Amino acid sequence: MTQQYPSQLLERAVQEFAKLPGIGRKTALRLVLHLLRRDTEEVQQFSDAIATMRREIRFCTTCHNISDQDTCPICADQRRDRSTVCVVENIQDVMAVENTQQFHGLYHVLGGLISPMDGIGPGDLEIDSLVQRVKESAISATEEPDSLEASPTKIREVILALSSTMEGDTTNFFIFRKLASYDVKISIIARGIAVGNELEYTDEVTLGRSILNRTPFDGH
Amino acid sequence: MTQQYPSQLLERAVQEFAKLPGIGRKTALRLVLHLLRRDTEEVQQFSDAIATMRREIRFCTTCHNISDQDTCPICADQRRDRSTVCVVENIQDVMAVENTQQFHGLYHVLGGLISPMDGIGPGDLEIDSLVQRVKESAISATEEPDSLEASPTKIREVILALSSTMEGDTTNFFIFRKLASYDVKISIIARGIAVGNELEYTDEVTLGRSILNRTPFDGH
Repeated sequence: MTQQYPSQLLERAVQEFAKLPGIGRKTALRLVLHLLRRDTEEVQQFSDAIATMRREIRFCTTCHNISDQDTCPICADQRRDRSTVCVVENIQDVMAVENTQQFHGLYHVLGGLISPMDGIGPGDLEIDSLVQRVKESAISATEEPDSLEASPTKIREVILALSSTMEGDTTNFFIFRKLASYDVKISIIARGIAVGNELEYTDEVTLGRSILNRTPFDGH
Repeated sequence: MTQQYPSQLLERAVQEFAKLPGIGRKTALRLVLHLLRRDTEEVQQFSDAIATMRREIRFCTTCHNISDQDTCPICADQRRDRSTVCVVENIQDVMAVENTQQFHGLYHVLGGLISPMDGIGPGDLEIDSLVQRVKESAISATEEPDSLEASPTKIREVILALSSTMEGDTTNFFIFRKLASYDVKISIIARGIAVGNELEYTDEVTLGRSILNRTPFDGH
């Protein structure tokens, strides 16, 4: 590619922006020229926020959610139901479930889904650590509570909240088999017609599922 | 706004990204999470490129185009026609005209257009410096070339290449009046039906202009 801009500094900044997903060279240039119009300190702040975030951010050692400490605010919150763990693909999904305000347990972030096409196997995901979590909670719950450390509450239910895709289904099935030998209830989020959607425009598979998984109706 | 993310570092980075034009909080989060998956050094590079660019970039002291030196590559290029100056609104417009490969003179970047609605007056733009440029080139061209310094070539034509908007027209007229007393040809880029556009869908004003400004046709 020929050098298009009258400045190497500009060229480099545009190139860096254009590496971001969904940002082409035209948008990158627009963003860079916008930053050029801002104060040097403001741009330094922007730049620092990004570098610092990448350098200092950590992941919760328990649930692998993003965190500023070793334990994320959700795992640290003693008011939450520690016997229920919701398995999600990524950090955005934690936020999505949290936003529903319908779940008060803990999470386990897999960091992806099993996808042979993309070369992602179970070993690339936080599946072993999920099994370990279930196992350890079962052991410590049966032991006498003689240690000073607070023993983890026994995990009674694992809710699989993954995307309804082939990759999600594969991952669901893999986790199901891995946890089959443990005394833990495994559930999966309901699939059915989306709230507000018309029956006519719902695909057949979803509609079929929503009929099979119909729930008792009490008039409300 | 409630703290939505489990990390202040993440929150800050998202906030900074969301300040960019056309980037909302959702897109900002997506970009930040993408950067989280990249190597720390890569992200540091991204961050450095932006801060360095803002800190070190300069503007050409002659034409106000972006530059790494005091004189931009275009103004420094002795092969270009130094008697013709194309007046444009901003840096992107320099690139747009350059990409046509139809112009071989120099530029003058105004840094905006006169827009009373946005509080932008002639004093906020590089109009005085354009007049000064025309004036100085005229003086030095009449003087005996006895100084060791290379005297600037006389500017014979100023091409107004601004947007065909109310702001562009106002700015064109203002510059026209400012330069009226100097011995310089002032021209304006042609307005007419865009190449490849159908007559039927061209607006009346443009069509009217293209009839008034019709050019001799020699069969080619």
